[in-house]
Amino acid sequence: MKLAVDAMGGDYAPEEVIKGVEQARDAYPDIEFLVFGQAERVTPLVTNMTRISVKNADEVITMEDEPVRAVRRKKNSSIVLAAQAVKDGEADAFFSAGNTGAVLAAGLFIVGRIKGIDRPGLTTTMPIIGSETANQFVMLDVGANADYKPFNLVQYAIMGKSYAESVMHVANPRIGLLNNGTESDKGDRAHRATYDALAGLTDINFVGNVESRDLLNGPADVVVTDGFTGNATLKAIEGTALTMLSTIKDGIMAGGMKSKLGALMLKDTFRSVGHQMDYSQYGGAVLLGLQAPVVKTHGSSKAKTIKNTIAQIKAMVDGGSVKDVNTYFETHSDDMAALKDKLK
Amino acid sequence: MKLAVDAMGGDYAPEEVIKGVEQARDAYPDIEFLVFGQAERVTPLVTNMTRISVKNADEVITMEDEPVRAVRRKKNSSIVLAAQAVKDGEADAFFSAGNTGAVLAAGLFIVGRIKGIDRPGLTTTMPIIGSETANQFVMLDVGANADYKPFNLVQYAIMGKSYAESVMHVANPRIGLLNNGTESDKGDRAHRATYDALAGLTDINFVGNVESRDLLNGPADVVVTDGFTGNATLKAIEGTALTMLSTIKDGIMAGGMKSKLGALMLKDTFRSVGHQMDYSQYGGAVLLGLQAPVVKTHGSSKAKTIKNTIAQIKAMVDGGSVKDVNTYFETHSDDMAALKDKLK
Repeated sequence: MKLAVDAMGGDYAPEEVIKGVEQARDAYPDIEFLVFGQAERVTPLVTNMTRISVKNADEVITMEDEPVRAVRRKKNSSIVLAAQAVKDGEADAFFSAGNTGAVLAAGLFIVGRIKGIDRPGLTTTMPIIGSETANQFVMLDVGANADYKPFNLVQYAIMGKSYAESVMHVANPRIGLLNNGTESDKGDRAHRATYDALAGLTDINFVGNVESRDLLNGPADVVVTDGFTGNATLKAIEGTALTMLSTIKDGIMAGGMKSKLGALMLKDTFRSVGHQMDYSQYGGAVLLGLQAPVVKTHGSSKAKTIKNTIAQIKAMVDGGSVKDVNTYFETHSDDMAALKDKLK
Repeated sequence: MKLAVDAMGGDYAPEEVIKGVEQARDAYPDIEFLVFGQAERVTPLVTNMTRISVKNADEVITMEDEPVRAVRRKKNSSIVLAAQAVKDGEADAFFSAGNTGAVLAAGLFIVGRIKGIDRPGLTTTMPIIGSETANQFVMLDVGANADYKPFNLVQYAIMGKSYAESVMHVANPRIGLLNNGTESDKGDRAHRATYDALAGLTDINFVGNVESRDLLNGPADVVVTDGFTGNATLKAIEGTALTMLSTIKDGIMAGGMKSKLGALMLKDTFRSVGHQMDYSQYGGAVLLGLQAPVVKTHGSSKAKTIKNTIAQIKAMVDGGSVKDVNTYFETHSDDMAALKDKLK
């Protein structure tokens, strides 16, 4: 497979991006890399050019750029040129650690949607803590679309199922709807309508409503939600985890010798908890519903996360997830049109 | 003041409720208690009848009862009779640790709304961690109304402000809108409209959008949100905190002697973190927008939490929060009608 890489995005670009690409190149002999960025900065960083081509991109989309405008105007930016390479069939997938909005916009406007998908959904992998049967789940949409219709959520369920099967290798993945109670009549009108539509879909293993309180315990392999609620929930989990870790740390620092000694003895435990909560190890956020995998990693990603993200993209391409979704919506176009009409 | 108490609600009712009432009676000499419950069970639990009257209520609304139907049919339940006592002016406020939906329904249908308030909002107090200027904030609505209009959120801001002033004693409280980004154009249509309305309201100190990631760091004293997002966010914070504490505990138990010894040395630190995260210490959830304080404490509340909740209700009654809100909506009825019309 061929991967288009934005070398200029992220807090540690281009150095850590190139390091991660080289690590992935060494680990996966079947990947070729098209690396987009300012050639005079990027090329000297590459220690070994095997299966790596640097493609010059004069412009850089920064974190401060207004995403849609930047994608329209900065035609020679690494994000736009990398997306264009996918569109032109020169690469099978595209990833970036840069401006999230610009990556999503480039995915939507340049790579393009799968026919029948109204709104691609931003999909993130989260940890399941303390379960013996599963250690991760995916949640979508976590922020691509703040405004939505129940029909979009039905499409997320189908795309999420395919992703869980092909990338996470889960057979018959459990699909849950994020709602404010587990009973079938919970939620606002839109979520009640979504529940009914998901319950009526025979192609998925719908396990009903799940609550944000239980997410980390793993009630579902795929959690379907609207982009507004998904974003708030994801950020609440992140923020609480960070606050608790820093509060414990502050308590230790303020606690004198005894507490510092205790912390030293618990170092492995803290490291393991931090590791379990650190979902960047699971790769980046994927905009599902596009003609090719488009993946955004955390801006703070270093080489190891870049490499993990490339492994995740490889699984998506090898597993044929995009092709599966394409086929599903092609063969079910009449059912989907009828469902969309019903959910209007 | 006179307080109507549901003695039959909660996991440890009636024993712990009565214990908490007696502790509050001893601490606050100006409160009289009307305690509603099955007299043959409740009366023997009271060790000292000073300022406590047991009012017999034959029926009990259980956690399994469908709330609205239960309030309509179980006319002799402790929840219905306690709410009726408030309605009839025999009590100034009502609280319960029982069926949340039934408490909200009794508040809405029996105690009744303040004139001009379309949808009362469920309000909870949350901890602010590691700030030197504030140690708590309130968030509403956390689940009374899954379906909402921007105008409801404007009313939450006004009620939240009054609550923060009178109960938390915060001068000119900072009002934030929970949204999926801090920029003014973030969110779905409803939240963008709410932002504009709040920014145009001169009576409040609107500090803009806040993200769920930052809530525990205290960006606002009052966080305004819709009941669907607020519920998901609250439960995500709760669930993540519990999962992290139990993961650390599991890690310690699995970690052998060194890690158990370390944990012993950090006991005070863990206790302090657990204490900071335990928001039941701040009292119960209040349904703001009713003619009198109606407060729901956690079902797992024991005597100490019951006593804290009574202190909170006393602050609400003493601070005249309900009267303030009543006056505001009376004197601003034209402005509010115009704003409601504009936000349609």
